[in-house]
Amino acid sequence: MALTTAFTTSLGLRHPIALAPMGGSAGGALAAAVSNGGGLGMVGGGRGDRDWLRHELALLTGQTTSPWGIGFLAWGVDVETVAWALEYQPAAMMLSFGDPAPFAERVRDAGAQLVVQVTDLDEARRALDVGADVIVAQGTEAGGHGGAGRGTLPFVPAVVDLASPVPVLAAGGIADGRGLAAALVLGAAGALLGTRFQASREALVPPQLTEALLHGRGEDTVRSRTLDVARGAPWPERYPARTLRNAFLERWHGREAELSRNAAARQEFRAAAERDDIDYVPVWAGEALDLITEIRPAADIVTDLATEAERALASGGHR
Amino acid sequence: MALTTAFTTSLGLRHPIALAPMGGSAGGALAAAVSNGGGLGMVGGGRGDRDWLRHELALLTGQTTSPWGIGFLAWGVDVETVAWALEYQPAAMMLSFGDPAPFAERVRDAGAQLVVQVTDLDEARRALDVGADVIVAQGTEAGGHGGAGRGTLPFVPAVVDLASPVPVLAAGGIADGRGLAAALVLGAAGALLGTRFQASREALVPPQLTEALLHGRGEDTVRSRTLDVARGAPWPERYPARTLRNAFLERWHGREAELSRNAAARQEFRAAAERDDIDYVPVWAGEALDLITEIRPAADIVTDLATEAERALASGGHR
Repeated sequence: MALTTAFTTSLGLRHPIALAPMGGSAGGALAAAVSNGGGLGMVGGGRGDRDWLRHELALLTGQTTSPWGIGFLAWGVDVETVAWALEYQPAAMMLSFGDPAPFAERVRDAGAQLVVQVTDLDEARRALDVGADVIVAQGTEAGGHGGAGRGTLPFVPAVVDLASPVPVLAAGGIADGRGLAAALVLGAAGALLGTRFQASREALVPPQLTEALLHGRGEDTVRSRTLDVARGAPWPERYPARTLRNAFLERWHGREAELSRNAAARQEFRAAAERDDIDYVPVWAGEALDLITEIRPAADIVTDLATEAERALASGGHR
Repeated sequence: MALTTAFTTSLGLRHPIALAPMGGSAGGALAAAVSNGGGLGMVGGGRGDRDWLRHELALLTGQTTSPWGIGFLAWGVDVETVAWALEYQPAAMMLSFGDPAPFAERVRDAGAQLVVQVTDLDEARRALDVGADVIVAQGTEAGGHGGAGRGTLPFVPAVVDLASPVPVLAAGGIADGRGLAAALVLGAAGALLGTRFQASREALVPPQLTEALLHGRGEDTVRSRTLDVARGAPWPERYPARTLRNAFLERWHGREAELSRNAAARQEFRAAAERDDIDYVPVWAGEALDLITEIRPAADIVTDLATEAERALASGGHR
């Protein structure tokens, strides 16, 4: 039995699984592997570094003929860069964390599906208003940036009730087939996963960060602005990031204003970041970390997720 | 098809659904209605007010012959009161928010199932160590008191992996059959619901608070210690409560130490609480509030939850 949903049908996917377009780590090889596995691979375009994207998109298009996508940060990318990226003919263009309106028409005109990630019900309404083809409902369990207010389990059905018949993907706290099955029975048309794919062979993640991921637990993660302030990353305050706790974060968490004025502390951070010191740098990680125990090829992660989800659905309520 | 799990089998229930033993509002009539509907009704014993319990347990035992339970706060009840309550022969005795060890032997000796609610993995390990028969894994989306660190969706499978074969109930953010179905596919043997039953005909909730519940949204709730400090309720700091935001909470949230020293503010609170003024009193509510739109008889809520969950499981992955 295959898991067929409005999301798989409209994009021609084998499995209702999407790769979160994580800036920096979701490059062309990872996106291609997810797409080749039957999911929707998406390159993490971040704020739109064209040199990086040119390289990763060349890799991607050389490695897959399946549907794929690109994701950008709505607060940080410009319309021209999105238009430029659309020339690569992605099947899906995802916009997160900011107003999707300036980009919607370009995406539609290019024939790509407009995927909009939301973190509360007002953002979901806005996504529907601009004509999103797919809505990603992201709960606060997610690794990396996001909202601080909604847990995935109750948030997803609320967005589904609002968006229907527009398909919704669940994101945040999903790392295995049980989580994918939960997304589906909550009414979602699939799931979008980040942290599980950070711990894949194809992710662009330094080895010591991957090690930290494998040894971390969900309770070792925290949602905070501290490391963005330390990095000088101009993220909107309403989207703090979930990372592993580390020594620098523990020292400055809750004292972000003071940190932003402390040049010596930020210099100390930058020097440590140069060597990817995990006592300093953000190790992006979601609460589902407990469920991730090994590095796997991304295509295998996709097929295992689907197989496990089918099994969970078949046995649900009989255990 | 019935939803048969280790939880329904061991307690002889028709449905894998439990009533959260909410102090004050989960009285005998509500617990009896949930049990008569085929779930496990549990009276909210709080810190152990025997006069209140005597009254509610008389009501309960007069209204049902199905299995039922009682819940107490482990940090606030004494062993003698739990022993006294066990004389009423509950099928289940639930202990939450504190060390269950002092109570475990008495519960076992009385032949009741020991149900332990946990909010992180260390608490789950402790519950297993003392021989819990059922573990309730409560995520931070839950209404009322609880932990602030774990979302239900990733927390439940992590506890299931730890506890298996001990059955786990999912709690926090579940208010309809989709949420129950999600709990089951995550590996839980059922779900424990609070807020959904607060909005039932049998709950001991003043009408203006019920109205507020029906009009509130998940995003109107917040987890905070403010109202406990205002009430002078001696809850451990690690278990803040999720309630609707209100004017008093907005004014003092984050300034709890100052509030505890401000006698005038606490006097103002007490006067308003006398008249159940919802700008002051806690309206306990979880994030699943978006999914609750009407007051229903509790037994109907139970049967609808089961029917909807079966439908969600049957259609999961084919929408």
